[in-house]
Amino acid sequence: MDRDRILLTPGPLTTTLRTKLAMLHDWGSWDGDFNAVTASVRRRLLEIVHGQDSHVVVPLQGSGTFSVEAAVATVVPRDGHVLVLDNGAYCKRAAKLTQLMGRRCSVLAFDEDAPVSPAALEARLQADRSITHVVLIHCETGAGVLNPLEEVAAACERQGRGLIVDAMSSFAALPIDARRVRFDALVAASGKCLEGVPGMGFVFLRRAILDGCAGHSQSLAMDLHDQHVYMEKTGQWRFTPPTHVVVALSEAIAQFEEEGGQPARLARYQDNCRTLVDGLQALGLRPFLKPVHQAPIIVTFHAPEHPAYEFKRFYAAAKQRGFMLYPGKLTTLETFRVGCIGAIGRLEMQQAVDAVGAALRELGIPAAPQ
Amino acid sequence: MDRDRILLTPGPLTTTLRTKLAMLHDWGSWDGDFNAVTASVRRRLLEIVHGQDSHVVVPLQGSGTFSVEAAVATVVPRDGHVLVLDNGAYCKRAAKLTQLMGRRCSVLAFDEDAPVSPAALEARLQADRSITHVVLIHCETGAGVLNPLEEVAAACERQGRGLIVDAMSSFAALPIDARRVRFDALVAASGKCLEGVPGMGFVFLRRAILDGCAGHSQSLAMDLHDQHVYMEKTGQWRFTPPTHVVVALSEAIAQFEEEGGQPARLARYQDNCRTLVDGLQALGLRPFLKPVHQAPIIVTFHAPEHPAYEFKRFYAAAKQRGFMLYPGKLTTLETFRVGCIGAIGRLEMQQAVDAVGAALRELGIPAAPQ
Repeated sequence: MDRDRILLTPGPLTTTLRTKLAMLHDWGSWDGDFNAVTASVRRRLLEIVHGQDSHVVVPLQGSGTFSVEAAVATVVPRDGHVLVLDNGAYCKRAAKLTQLMGRRCSVLAFDEDAPVSPAALEARLQADRSITHVVLIHCETGAGVLNPLEEVAAACERQGRGLIVDAMSSFAALPIDARRVRFDALVAASGKCLEGVPGMGFVFLRRAILDGCAGHSQSLAMDLHDQHVYMEKTGQWRFTPPTHVVVALSEAIAQFEEEGGQPARLARYQDNCRTLVDGLQALGLRPFLKPVHQAPIIVTFHAPEHPAYEFKRFYAAAKQRGFMLYPGKLTTLETFRVGCIGAIGRLEMQQAVDAVGAALRELGIPAAPQ
Repeated sequence: MDRDRILLTPGPLTTTLRTKLAMLHDWGSWDGDFNAVTASVRRRLLEIVHGQDSHVVVPLQGSGTFSVEAAVATVVPRDGHVLVLDNGAYCKRAAKLTQLMGRRCSVLAFDEDAPVSPAALEARLQADRSITHVVLIHCETGAGVLNPLEEVAAACERQGRGLIVDAMSSFAALPIDARRVRFDALVAASGKCLEGVPGMGFVFLRRAILDGCAGHSQSLAMDLHDQHVYMEKTGQWRFTPPTHVVVALSEAIAQFEEEGGQPARLARYQDNCRTLVDGLQALGLRPFLKPVHQAPIIVTFHAPEHPAYEFKRFYAAAKQRGFMLYPGKLTTLETFRVGCIGAIGRLEMQQAVDAVGAALRELGIPAAPQ
């Protein structure tokens, strides 16, 4: 009767009861006990990317987009020039926030059904020496494409430019190794593949560039350098932290570690993704991306080509059966999306497939296996 | 054994179990059920200041400071000139964030042990026609002073300037009536006198100036005009909302209404404040402010003039007895602060007084009633 529906959305997502139960306490944001939680979260986040020697991690209040904006504001000097590799909606958002804050911004556009091209990037960097920083979305959830982080990072390193990675939807699920991949900033958030609740982001900053970031930000709240300096000095956040969200993230990270860390999480999400794609294909629904480009995070499907299809009704029918789908984000094609992430496994995904099948039947759309 | 300590801090504060239990569910940020929660929170927030006809309210992710920065960025044009009325630490923070974002900023300085002067403000506004907006901190919790909102608003209205009010620590406890007091923006947050958990702020914006705010903000994440337009169109937040924090706030507002709204909350906090001040004075501790300037939100006390006093040890001794005090924020005097707000009443305040007495005895500081 009061069971939550399963969120097949890329954050907020379904969290465990254990994670939510961690929020049943109040913590003093100034107190040593809470400072210890913050320090422990930061230490364990660094371990996930093997960044203990090369990076620091700075948590920030707000949604993931706040942390992306803060990363650009903190890392890129006022007279810097940012190149955004654009193959989807979140790339366009990164370009927009960069322009708004007054940084020079260029866009290298790619199709949204395939990864960005490291070769095209390198040619552009060679042709335009004024570009100081590159922005890459690791997993572009607009369509669900996995972008080639390692190759992009290598091109930036060869060309001597900074790299800011939005790893919002990939961090903790896809492998990221700071010992092998050079990035100036990498951004993720609490309510994604770590399976915490939403309300804070965090940014890995390369130690070698950290001191040079002082005074870059035109925003007080989003100045990650200032946040870092204060946190190192006092153990505290500069401004009121979302205490309940932080302790929930700490509890979520504990479960992440117990599950077996990133490899185990990736394996579960891959299995979720396979169960989903196989099941929906058997119902006649076609994924938008080629399998080779598909990250196991969120899958875009073409809407059924049937006059009875309407996303709103489809969504309502699936929701009635306990599963929350996600609308498409492509501008030219009618699609819908289904997330593979969150505290769910094969059982829930098979139930989701069954619910989608029943929803289609309710709309009068016959299954048409490919 | 596992009871939480009482937070005598001005947010995060002690919340009810009922408020925290609301966080035991996951919500889809895109879903109609969650949109209904957001709409209901916005409607009830407007009612608290009687702003249904004159204002809109725009929620924002992050701490209260994020919302203060967003209010300045959204309301003040790029070529605007802000005058900050400064009688404490939070005033200085408002001036700093205004300067950083590139708005011209002047400061009118007052002593930190008394309210700002509406007459001095009006003289300054008459002398400097370039000032477009005034920033007032309603309750300056640096020392705990209540500033004269109505008189400041009247001066701004007479002089035809905009007013931005940081009502972080006063909203929902002290009376604010948008029908009688003209403000362009008024800022508060979830984890203060509404007794929700921290993680979001909200800004009341005057309808008459709303359209003119388009394009002011140099921050995408903090553009309250954009957030408002999107929310009116879709019912959703632009970027991932802190869903659990939002539903906790909704539950906290329900309890606020059941208690009797702002007058009842004020009465409880006044009683807390009296119990605290009377009790600590009986132990020989002197409040920093004159009673007439003291808001019933947070009280600054002079540290005992005794060689055995050290805040850290005092804090630890009170914490061991279940109560979390707050450090002073005055630069020239040694003080400590005690909050009167949160889901606590006379019983907890009397226990807090007893704990402070025992802590002083433990430090070897004799009670010295005045």
